[in-house]
Amino acid sequence: MSDYQVFEAGDVLLQSDITLRDTELVYKTHGTLNAEGTNAIIYPTRYGGTHVDNEFLIGEGMALDPSKYFIICPNKFGNGTSSSPSNTPAPFDGPKFPRVTIYDNVMVQHRLVTEVLGVKRFVLAVGWSMGAQQVYQWACLFPDMVERLATLAGSARCAKHNFVFIEGVKAALTADAEFKNGWYERQPRIGLQSMGRVWAGWALCQEWYRKEMYRSLGYSSLDDFLTAYWDGIYLQRDPNDLLAMMDTWQQADISANDTFKGDFEKALGAITAKTYVMPGQTDLYFPPEDGEYEAEHIPNAEFRPIPSLWGHYAGGGKDPTGADQKFIDDSLTELLSA
Amino acid sequence: MSDYQVFEAGDVLLQSDITLRDTELVYKTHGTLNAEGTNAIIYPTRYGGTHVDNEFLIGEGMALDPSKYFIICPNKFGNGTSSSPSNTPAPFDGPKFPRVTIYDNVMVQHRLVTEVLGVKRFVLAVGWSMGAQQVYQWACLFPDMVERLATLAGSARCAKHNFVFIEGVKAALTADAEFKNGWYERQPRIGLQSMGRVWAGWALCQEWYRKEMYRSLGYSSLDDFLTAYWDGIYLQRDPNDLLAMMDTWQQADISANDTFKGDFEKALGAITAKTYVMPGQTDLYFPPEDGEYEAEHIPNAEFRPIPSLWGHYAGGGKDPTGADQKFIDDSLTELLSA
Repeated sequence: MSDYQVFEAGDVLLQSDITLRDTELVYKTHGTLNAEGTNAIIYPTRYGGTHVDNEFLIGEGMALDPSKYFIICPNKFGNGTSSSPSNTPAPFDGPKFPRVTIYDNVMVQHRLVTEVLGVKRFVLAVGWSMGAQQVYQWACLFPDMVERLATLAGSARCAKHNFVFIEGVKAALTADAEFKNGWYERQPRIGLQSMGRVWAGWALCQEWYRKEMYRSLGYSSLDDFLTAYWDGIYLQRDPNDLLAMMDTWQQADISANDTFKGDFEKALGAITAKTYVMPGQTDLYFPPEDGEYEAEHIPNAEFRPIPSLWGHYAGGGKDPTGADQKFIDDSLTELLSA
Repeated sequence: MSDYQVFEAGDVLLQSDITLRDTELVYKTHGTLNAEGTNAIIYPTRYGGTHVDNEFLIGEGMALDPSKYFIICPNKFGNGTSSSPSNTPAPFDGPKFPRVTIYDNVMVQHRLVTEVLGVKRFVLAVGWSMGAQQVYQWACLFPDMVERLATLAGSARCAKHNFVFIEGVKAALTADAEFKNGWYERQPRIGLQSMGRVWAGWALCQEWYRKEMYRSLGYSSLDDFLTAYWDGIYLQRDPNDLLAMMDTWQQADISANDTFKGDFEKALGAITAKTYVMPGQTDLYFPPEDGEYEAEHIPNAEFRPIPSLWGHYAGGGKDPTGADQKFIDDSLTELLSA
């Protein structure tokens, strides 16, 4: 993973009124910006993911074609590449890393794309999950820069039930005494495994488990899936990084800033992009109802749920048949040609 | 809670091939058995509940009217009243308490009602949640004894997704180092609070939280609800008791016995009772789809979901407007008059 670049953003005043010093925004670009600076796509990262995890939607012949577009994948703060609890020096390291909001992320990304990359506007802003939270924020803060918007299995603010789901995950992680309020000397392995097991029921839906669809991913039984996939999924992650990202997630609200002053509908109404709101039809934590509400309040939006049994994972194209990925790619192709 | 009686069941050979010694089944009856022994109702307990928690459906003028019926509420093994990890002497105490299945529960209940109470048959078998698991088992094992069946927000076997949800709860509880593999000297408070916080997202649905319906229960905010209700809900409970009940829950399958040998549809087909299958319409862990399947395979069943936003709690009549309780009571009145 040395295929990235770093934007040294210096001192960043956060919404929390803390100054994040020597801020680094790690990003990866695909393709080349044209002379007019008008073929750019912004594609931020999901929870727990880096720019590498974005690549399932990027490729020649796909909607996000690097031979046609200049695709920018900025890494979210807290994800372990950009400034995060795990890579920030004392006294802002570990559990003392300040709260960073979706707004904070987007404001630094704005500096990157305008000051460093020379981008004037985006033909498309797209993201999955927390990536969707970021592009919703982009589209309402900078409507003149975002021509098209596609939000995959995310929402413009964290719904209360979604907040509660994350509370459970956090509780499972931090229940491990090895966590030591974030000052662990070694991985709190039991907590990390527990949070994975809590997450397991949320990421995929009742019918997915009823049909034993883990078998399509190569797992031989439910126990095999829970152990091999979920118990292990967070073991390589830094707990404070995970918690910082969950905090960003829980605080997400595109209207929680001086521009919109908490008026959520006003923030949605400020989006001028041609928009596809694309929740997973069976997503338990970003359920389609929230997306439907958002689509109703965005002037030029179409509600286009992904018809899938893959729960939240529909937005990540994890279905091995490729059906969800194709649905998303076809939709993005259609959106880009509009 | 001294308003109960105890059936000393002696040695009980469990499905696990362990003998539970000096077995006690605690039960409470309401009303009087008629001379013919034909006005009895069996109404087992839910997860984490005792006979006291059953009383929301019992009262003069209600369907379960103790002036008309003899209502038997047997306490599930593991719930802290009947034989449980917390009240069984060594070497079967605490984490060494044997696995007790729904089948084991029902077989001891059968001895109680036939040998001790002189009941010939039930006009109704009814239960909520794990109570529903038990009455499904009653109705297929002893079809000649169960004239009518009502299953509230439960299922005849634990669906795989439901199993995964419970896995997350167990992981959160046992991640606390104070749990000490079940040999705790004091309450593993962090684990108990964490399991409550994990459960919070599952018990009630997305729309319930979206509408902030915790306010109707007297909680002033989401944080107030999570702290005052969920962080506290399990603190008075014994962790090994909770785990024993969760194991019973996860193993639930009315066909997992010598009578039906794992043929689930055959077990459902053996039920002759006039049956109302009554899941909560928005229940996330006993979703209506499982109940619909069961109703299709029970010869004389009607699928009658509770139209409620109260998730799993619909079956417990926890809606303070009384709407869910009334829907259930009206349905039971109708069923009893059929």
